[in-house]
Amino acid sequence: MTTVGLLHPGAMGASVGAAAAGNGHRVLWVARGRSGATAERANRGGLKPCDSIATMSAEADIILSVCPPHAAEEVARDVSAAGFRGIFVEGNAIAPPRTRRIQASMPDCRFVDGGIIGGPAWTAGAGTRFYLSGSHAREVAALFEGSPLEARVISTEAGAASALKMVFAAYTKGTTALLTAILAVAEAEGVRGDLETQWGREFTDRTHRQVTGNTAKAWRFAGEMEEIAATFAGAGLPDGFHLAAAEVFSRLAEFKDTPAEDLGPVLKVLLTRD
Amino acid sequence: MTTVGLLHPGAMGASVGAAAAGNGHRVLWVARGRSGATAERANRGGLKPCDSIATMSAEADIILSVCPPHAAEEVARDVSAAGFRGIFVEGNAIAPPRTRRIQASMPDCRFVDGGIIGGPAWTAGAGTRFYLSGSHAREVAALFEGSPLEARVISTEAGAASALKMVFAAYTKGTTALLTAILAVAEAEGVRGDLETQWGREFTDRTHRQVTGNTAKAWRFAGEMEEIAATFAGAGLPDGFHLAAAEVFSRLAEFKDTPAEDLGPVLKVLLTRD
Repeated sequence: MTTVGLLHPGAMGASVGAAAAGNGHRVLWVARGRSGATAERANRGGLKPCDSIATMSAEADIILSVCPPHAAEEVARDVSAAGFRGIFVEGNAIAPPRTRRIQASMPDCRFVDGGIIGGPAWTAGAGTRFYLSGSHAREVAALFEGSPLEARVISTEAGAASALKMVFAAYTKGTTALLTAILAVAEAEGVRGDLETQWGREFTDRTHRQVTGNTAKAWRFAGEMEEIAATFAGAGLPDGFHLAAAEVFSRLAEFKDTPAEDLGPVLKVLLTRD
Repeated sequence: MTTVGLLHPGAMGASVGAAAAGNGHRVLWVARGRSGATAERANRGGLKPCDSIATMSAEADIILSVCPPHAAEEVARDVSAAGFRGIFVEGNAIAPPRTRRIQASMPDCRFVDGGIIGGPAWTAGAGTRFYLSGSHAREVAALFEGSPLEARVISTEAGAASALKMVFAAYTKGTTALLTAILAVAEAEGVRGDLETQWGREFTDRTHRQVTGNTAKAWRFAGEMEEIAATFAGAGLPDGFHLAAAEVFSRLAEFKDTPAEDLGPVLKVLLTRD
């Protein structure tokens, strides 16, 4: 049995912690200052509250950072400051150069890079994969063996798991942003009905579901799109696709936690000029 | 029988002319200064050579402009300068504001906007559509009735057909550019194999075909991507998706007329820094 620290039990993090807890590992989270909804998710996942990152750092063998992209450095800094010397898993949707900077900032930890592809995995067959890279990646993967979260080690180098997350989401979320923008432009030009006739019913219906279903999460994807843009720029490819995607998602921030029920309000928000 | 002028019988234009010629209309093209390959396409389509735009303008009831986006104004100017007073069809992949500027520049013509979606339509069932808009659009559509090219009138306003072409190609060609860039970034980061495993065989094979199959045409899609970017900006949406797409396609210009056989040379060109 391994003691694991999870920072923090958001929608994705709680499911990652639950996968390890379900395998009999002791999974700690820091309850102080967190919402009732977070506590509920942590309880559901079989996670144990502890009072501080200091306590977690003293007790855990492995700490998993699963948080929104903008908070990645803060979590790593807090863990470093608490004197943690175990395996730190940077599991967030950030550009590989940023992952490597975080690695360099915590020389006392054994650093593992992670990237999660798929939704929260609460039950077997979810298809969600936790990609891992770095010299201690196998010890992290072992936590999840046989759990609903499929861990895959892809490299001994930190950065690879981040890169894979970036290039995969570049298409899935990039095309969601693109389709959202296309529908708005078509509406503005008065040809949305013609476009949807040309697309056909199946593609149109799927696109409407994709666009409206994304609205509740769009606020937190903007930061991820900026990370993908940085990844493209780092490889010498244009960053414009995902800077544009970040702008589209930013404009949808008002749908946070209450997704649009249909396309009408989405188009209205996108076409309202400040 | 209507006399039609076609400027010019490129890969797409020749098929449009052939569709009208196949319906018994007399379709003229201007042979002077054009290549042997163009003449061959024109002959194949049953088009008749004439000696100048002046002759065409004197004889034709309808002139169709089907050319690369950058040449649209030049064709319209030449037709205006020749004193043409019939129906002029601006059938190119250009942004609606540009279509309307061209319309305003030729007050002596009856102006029809057109946008072609699909590949050259030489045989029945090709699925290619010639969208038309403007007050004389029906007279143009009548040329193609029952031909392999399906004409559809969508509005009495010029600009609608251009807009529809833009928003449709925004997805098809936009995602081709995006996937091309994603493969290059994945290659640069050393995770292309992992990405393709995550994508699965079917999506990967389709993407490879889409990316390599596009290379021979990429040189002429860069201008179209800039038109789509302008269309987005005009509607108040970000233009970055398609400015990035234009840059990707521009970098592939060396594959003009000789498509890449596999992904290797495509990635090499994209990842070579000047």
